Amino acid sequence: MAICSAHTTTSLHSPCPTVSNTGFRQKQVIFFTSNRRSGRRHGGARTFQVSCSVEKPVVIGLAADSGCGKSTFMRRLTSVFGGAAEPPKGGNPDSNTLISDTTTVICLDDYHSLDRTGRKEKGVTALDPRANNFDLMYEQVKAIKEGQTIEKPIYNHVTGLLDPPEVITPPKIFVIEGLHPMFDERVRDLLDFSIYLDISDEVKFAWKIQRDMAERGHSLESIQASIEARKPDFDAFIDPQKQYADAVIEVLPTQLIPDDNEGKVLRVKLIMKEGVKHFNPVYLFDEGSSISWVPCGRKLTCSYPGIKFAYGPDTYFGHEVSVLEMDGQFDRLDELIYVESHLSNLSTKFYGEVTQQMLKHADFPGSNNGTGLFQTIVGLKIRDLYEQIVAERAGAPAETAKV
Amino acid sequence: MAICSAHTTTSLHSPCPTVSNTGFRQKQVIFFTSNRRSGRRHGGARTFQVSCSVEKPVVIGLAADSGCGKSTFMRRLTSVFGGAAEPPKGGNPDSNTLISDTTTVICLDDYHSLDRTGRKEKGVTALDPRANNFDLMYEQVKAIKEGQTIEKPIYNHVTGLLDPPEVITPPKIFVIEGLHPMFDERVRDLLDFSIYLDISDEVKFAWKIQRDMAERGHSLESIQASIEARKPDFDAFIDPQKQYADAVIEVLPTQLIPDDNEGKVLRVKLIMKEGVKHFNPVYLFDEGSSISWVPCGRKLTCSYPGIKFAYGPDTYFGHEVSVLEMDGQFDRLDELIYVESHLSNLSTKFYGEVTQQMLKHADFPGSNNGTGLFQTIVGLKIRDLYEQIVAERAGAPAETAKV
Repeated sequence: MAICSAHTTTSLHSPCPTVSNTGFRQKQVIFFTSNRRSGRRHGGARTFQVSCSVEKPVVIGLAADSGCGKSTFMRRLTSVFGGAAEPPKGGNPDSNTLISDTTTVICLDDYHSLDRTGRKEKGVTALDPRANNFDLMYEQVKAIKEGQTIEKPIYNHVTGLLDPPEVITPPKIFVIEGLHPMFDERVRDLLDFSIYLDISDEVKFAWKIQRDMAERGHSLESIQASIEARKPDFDAFIDPQKQYADAVIEVLPTQLIPDDNEGKVLRVKLIMKEGVKHFNPVYLFDEGSSISWVPCGRKLTCSYPGIKFAYGPDTYFGHEVSVLEMDGQFDRLDELIYVESHLSNLSTKFYGEVTQQMLKHADFPGSNNGTGLFQTIVGLKIRDLYEQIVAERAGAPAETAKV
Repeated sequence: MAICSAHTTTSLHSPCPTVSNTGFRQKQVIFFTSNRRSGRRHGGARTFQVSCSVEKPVVIGLAADSGCGKSTFMRRLTSVFGGAAEPPKGGNPDSNTLISDTTTVICLDDYHSLDRTGRKEKGVTALDPRANNFDLMYEQVKAIKEGQTIEKPIYNHVTGLLDPPEVITPPKIFVIEGLHPMFDERVRDLLDFSIYLDISDEVKFAWKIQRDMAERGHSLESIQASIEARKPDFDAFIDPQKQYADAVIEVLPTQLIPDDNEGKVLRVKLIMKEGVKHFNPVYLFDEGSSISWVPCGRKLTCSYPGIKFAYGPDTYFGHEVSVLEMDGQFDRLDELIYVESHLSNLSTKFYGEVTQQMLKHADFPGSNNGTGLFQTIVGLKIRDLYEQIVAERAGAPAETAKV
């Protein structure tokens, strides 16, 4: 443990050895206890972590309904850090985890306390807190945040069963994504930053029709019925979490096409909470005032229905927020670089980085509209937040040393 | 004439001697001929002017209905050049002319061919071209533009009679303001820049009620009748001139107060023609795109009903234009400097010059709204246009000398 001295915490590139390495692991793993396991050990690992602050991950929560683009978001996020996210090597092929150089993303479905049969028997949906083990979720997220390795359960989406756990070691950035990252107050308090993907009912319906009716041959009635069936629990347990989010990406029908209900052209809002440490909201032209902007004009020509941005201060569940909105979609690259050049506080490292990221993943869903743009921007803000936290931690011991 | 060599034309501060000086005057005066005078001489002066291009005034046309703020506009314009405009010294006390160091403003009512009695006898209004002498207007504006002194008639607004003429010498900037500066094609072609003050019927009515009913005790019916009586000729002869203007200041009722008809809070548009030589339209944030901006927010608080700006490309009588709009009014100085700092292409000489000008004349009508702001901005654009023209004239001989 001598290699883990104070000065190593100042470097991003020389982190302390992770607790997953060699013999340390056995002492520091927080076991998955609900799957017929009993061991839970906390003690020793905490002492170790006190001197290795750089290993403590920055923890991000991402809430959204199933099938609402969380995985695309995660791929955009890990790309911002320069890596690609992949499932754990050599593990359960049905693992829901994605790992890149910097980031580990776990799916909170893994904390289902009831499997598919169990839920059916008790008559609860996966959205219901009673089908989820928040105690374990809290303990394991807390352990990871403290730099400890965990053994996390796996909910197998194929079989609907709980599979044997997988080992998760603390990454630089730990993302918990799923239905309930901000539901439990204890888990919520562990988050350094939280995001809620808010897809409006109209868009959700249009997307579901596109997928389930056009591609899978479901009837309109059955789609409507399945949405209606989910709605009470969604409204009761998922939707209220958005009030806690530091950033909300809200996806709405376009207002550029009258009475549009195709859900192809989207109006997307990025709602950014003010006063969040290490997070400076993006703005358009003039911080704190209200702007609407149609970039299409003399310098930029856009095809129908064009593009419209809006920006301004607002309140959201009683919080001061700044809202950036994009309605419409990009035709070509030059539109995006043009837009990027007029946005401020993007936390890019060079001119055009947003455009570069979007181009790199032009095949991802939403790359031509506000969902892709705002996911990319949030990715950059998370990188910035991470770097600020690391710098702050690195600075703290030095400050102390002076005294 | 040896003092009038090419190099003197390059300096704004060392102009050639004006034709009003000493013995030259008698040879170059273009006489007022309609008031029982007969002499009209053109020849000699032109030869003189070829080598003294700096003396040829820049000619500006300002069209508007009577009582629509032309004189305030003129006071703002002359102030931009650093001087105050006053009636000619020792002349007719009822002269309509204003003279400052740089600028001479004449009122085109002086070219009425019919006095008040004459108009009454023939049943024509002052708006009717038949009551105006466009031949003389053309000849005299042309003469001034060529650097010649004129003897211009005076229409006495107090007596309604044509008074003996006054001598007008060519200034640096010659402004013709009145009902018909762009009516006659020959006069129009002499203008280096033209402005139309377009007061909407609703605002005109509200203003007239304020002045004639509240202050002069006229009845609402008589006010309505007088507006109605003027309208056909106004629509036929005055209003169509706006299509020729390089800049139009359009004054409309506010849209910030639902169903407002008081005419106190105004929405003002500055319509700027594209492609006009020496005139670069002002823009807000992003040239050529469409913007709306409510500056009131986190940095700026505004009292009801607030302030709203809009900017964007448009067409106006088939011409490409850029339109800047301000709805609402300023509460305090800091609002104006805040707005100024976000406008581009203002042609100011230092940061805050618009605000300084507006503050200097805070007692002028419209100083808290878009009329004063846009009049000031147009004043700055005219100064810029003037300086560009002078620089161009100064540059031309030098270019020739190289060949």
